[in-house]
Amino acid sequence: MTQEGGLLPQWRAPLESRLLLLLSPEISTRCEASKLHLSRLWAAMRHGVLNGGKRVRGLLLMGAARATGADPLSQTSLDLACALECVHAFSLVHDDLPCMDDDALRRGQPTVHVAFDEATALLVGDALQTLGFELVTSCGAPPERCLPMVRSLAQATGATGMAGGQAVDIGVVGQTMTQAELEDMHRLKTGALIRAAVQIGALAGPHGSDSQAFGALTRFAELLGLAFQVVDDILDAQSDTQTLGKTAGKDRENGKPTFISLLGPVASRDYAAQLHVQALAALETFGAEADPLREIAHALTRRAH
Amino acid sequence: MTQEGGLLPQWRAPLESRLLLLLSPEISTRCEASKLHLSRLWAAMRHGVLNGGKRVRGLLLMGAARATGADPLSQTSLDLACALECVHAFSLVHDDLPCMDDDALRRGQPTVHVAFDEATALLVGDALQTLGFELVTSCGAPPERCLPMVRSLAQATGATGMAGGQAVDIGVVGQTMTQAELEDMHRLKTGALIRAAVQIGALAGPHGSDSQAFGALTRFAELLGLAFQVVDDILDAQSDTQTLGKTAGKDRENGKPTFISLLGPVASRDYAAQLHVQALAALETFGAEADPLREIAHALTRRAH
Repeated sequence: MTQEGGLLPQWRAPLESRLLLLLSPEISTRCEASKLHLSRLWAAMRHGVLNGGKRVRGLLLMGAARATGADPLSQTSLDLACALECVHAFSLVHDDLPCMDDDALRRGQPTVHVAFDEATALLVGDALQTLGFELVTSCGAPPERCLPMVRSLAQATGATGMAGGQAVDIGVVGQTMTQAELEDMHRLKTGALIRAAVQIGALAGPHGSDSQAFGALTRFAELLGLAFQVVDDILDAQSDTQTLGKTAGKDRENGKPTFISLLGPVASRDYAAQLHVQALAALETFGAEADPLREIAHALTRRAH
Repeated sequence: MTQEGGLLPQWRAPLESRLLLLLSPEISTRCEASKLHLSRLWAAMRHGVLNGGKRVRGLLLMGAARATGADPLSQTSLDLACALECVHAFSLVHDDLPCMDDDALRRGQPTVHVAFDEATALLVGDALQTLGFELVTSCGAPPERCLPMVRSLAQATGATGMAGGQAVDIGVVGQTMTQAELEDMHRLKTGALIRAAVQIGALAGPHGSDSQAFGALTRFAELLGLAFQVVDDILDAQSDTQTLGKTAGKDRENGKPTFISLLGPVASRDYAAQLHVQALAALETFGAEADPLREIAHALTRRAH
């Protein structure tokens, strides 16, 4: 992703349009007081989601749908992709709060609690998590396919996934970790949702229930998720705030263990490249239908922000 | 509910046991760092849920399941009741945070951010919301019944329900509201989840898809939810902190509109009694199978805390 909007623009544009539509509902109450404050909540939700994010999770979901024979631009695929982006945005909004990372800047814009207020940011995160579940539930896939998707999202989001990883993350500040421990933390904190994005996408496709295809895509997602985190650490250590769109060097400043602090920059770069190769190898049984996934993997390991 | 644990103890005991079990999972990672911090997160989640709550939503769900012909003590009913209690507890944990109501006391115990820390309380709420969805998804009901349950929970929890109501609640501090506006706010903030509890319970029963029964139970839930809120306002204005188990008089102190500030204590008490009668009338087509729901309605409108 050498430039903003450069990755799969033919998928990203409809994804952005769908997100805007879903985050701009008609507010059904006739009470003016409710209407005013609900409108503000939705405006804050849009601020948290529609901010030029890379849409990695949404695009991965669409890529996995494509790889298993589904139309990545169907309403079902798009709504599922939007669900993943809402859940990801929820985690960022809460992660930026003063009691967590206390970050004022996200993708070059003021974070939700800065642009609005802390209580609103808390509710924005809560409501975006719920919206993610609602979108999966209403995506139009048959119930027997839809339910495993909801389960996959739940397992990736809560204490057994993302929230658990964040609890580890705030617990290990200032401590040294082994590489196995660091990877275990990232498997929860960022890996689980990336894996769920690919698995949910695979469940949308007619060939997604083929256990070999599902297993290969899961392995691809796990390796890519780890590569993504290693690259994140490299960028955080080396970029400036303007390029990154968020406060750079925060991890080091906060005494958080990273791949850079553990392996140094050269070995980290080698490791990211090696994970990239392994991720592509996991897709070797797929033909051109997995090219979008390969393109995402390539962009993510070569990105500059 | 004149004494703690007095309401439907034969249902409440297995509900509490199931909650304890679900909130004490084996932590699967072998990494010591992760294990330590994940254990702490689960301990904080237990603190947020297992604190002598009245279990109104869980018991209402079980009562609606019973009223529509399901076994209220089946694993499906219990897991669904636990899901509602997790979502309710999530809302309380976030509501108590310094950026919201800033409350140090809940059911006579220190709130999660006081007993642990603010970041942990944030993650506890997030993880409890997710767990609620996961429990519904895994409750064992057939997918075509389960999916509407998940949808009902999502619509009651997010911006179109509880989170939306909280956004209105923090927006109207210090403002005057009409009774219609106040009721509209409570319909979102507390009513939606009470309604979802009854609707999800009804969906678990073999007669729950009967639209007349479903409609009657929905009406019961809406009237009871409102009665519950009116009684809450009366108790908040009249009780002391020790009886209430949470800081009393906070609403008045915070300049929040309440039924007391709008109607005064006498008319508020009359209104609660009238809503109670209407809620019971909504159940008139039901026989003894709805007695537990009647018992809950009775206890909630006569409670002292």
